[in-house]
Amino acid sequence: MASMPRAVDRLIDALSRLPGIGPKTASRLTYHLLRAGEEEAAVLAEAVAALHRQTIMCSRCCNISETDPCAICTDDRRDHQTICVVEEPLDVVAIENTGNFHGLYHVLHGHISPMERIGPDELRIEPLLARVREDGIREIILATNPTLEGDATAIYISRLAQPYGVSVTRLALGLPRGGDLEYADRMTLSEALAGRRLI
Amino acid sequence: MASMPRAVDRLIDALSRLPGIGPKTASRLTYHLLRAGEEEAAVLAEAVAALHRQTIMCSRCCNISETDPCAICTDDRRDHQTICVVEEPLDVVAIENTGNFHGLYHVLHGHISPMERIGPDELRIEPLLARVREDGIREIILATNPTLEGDATAIYISRLAQPYGVSVTRLALGLPRGGDLEYADRMTLSEALAGRRLI
Repeated sequence: MASMPRAVDRLIDALSRLPGIGPKTASRLTYHLLRAGEEEAAVLAEAVAALHRQTIMCSRCCNISETDPCAICTDDRRDHQTICVVEEPLDVVAIENTGNFHGLYHVLHGHISPMERIGPDELRIEPLLARVREDGIREIILATNPTLEGDATAIYISRLAQPYGVSVTRLALGLPRGGDLEYADRMTLSEALAGRRLI
Repeated sequence: MASMPRAVDRLIDALSRLPGIGPKTASRLTYHLLRAGEEEAAVLAEAVAALHRQTIMCSRCCNISETDPCAICTDDRRDHQTICVVEEPLDVVAIENTGNFHGLYHVLHGHISPMERIGPDELRIEPLLARVREDGIREIILATNPTLEGDATAIYISRLAQPYGVSVTRLALGLPRGGDLEYADRMTLSEALAGRRLI
């Protein structure tokens, strides 16, 4: 950008590389940090720098963690025979926040997507199967996203897991709670119809 | 957030403090940085850390700069008798990008806003008046935003500047180029009508 110090340009550049942040937003954020003062910028810089330094991947569930194995994998009060399989670490947070799942997790770190050239080998599927084989798992809940890629990933894993006699389930599809039938898309409404239950 | 390493929480926190970034976006950005790898995070951390270290404020025009006075204030090819007054450093970039202004700038660092408790003393108005008094300025172009606050700021400055015999102008209001009359708001259309010109 003309007439801007290089340090400003460089931060705008770095922020623009983040997903969903265009050059305009990056400029506004940069300018905010300039105005907010040195301390807020220092806190952010340190937080970014510490991110990789202070996190590792749990060698069992592949979630990001401070310890290996992670706090969930080593929690004796949890059900160690059920594994909930998710695409991303943030999905673990979402499910933990329901307060209704007490088993273990397995984080795939993505989904199968021929379009993005992500094959099964890019995901943490092999360590999942090892757990199914070795850890006496009775159920795996496939909680990949309800998308084409999430479905494909779930189907792929279910085929590999079934020979081990483990029960393989998938999260229910239907209308979101609090949603409005009138605004539900055709696919969601079809799934809700197909999955209707006796009351 | 439950079940997340503290380093992740801390970065989500720090990012959430930025304007327009909510906790969900902050989570997504944090997770992106985790996935993108250590190098991208290091580049961003260093860019944030360098921001204040490598920028100063030009003591003449109050724009952010690497040098004092800044490159614009010391550029002999520019018209040193005309000052364009803007609210923020990013406004300087916007006007420079037109390629149609060759004078100097003055950055107020905000606007007068009783609602936000920002009075004239919080802005760099006094140094502007000093320049008008001492530097043989012939015109100041008030390029504050076309908002209530920007207008109030412009009127305030014009009153203080007029005694010095300087010509005080304000950017034209009207329809934005490429806009659609049908979608113009009432205020804009009224301004366009009031400011109509012979062709």
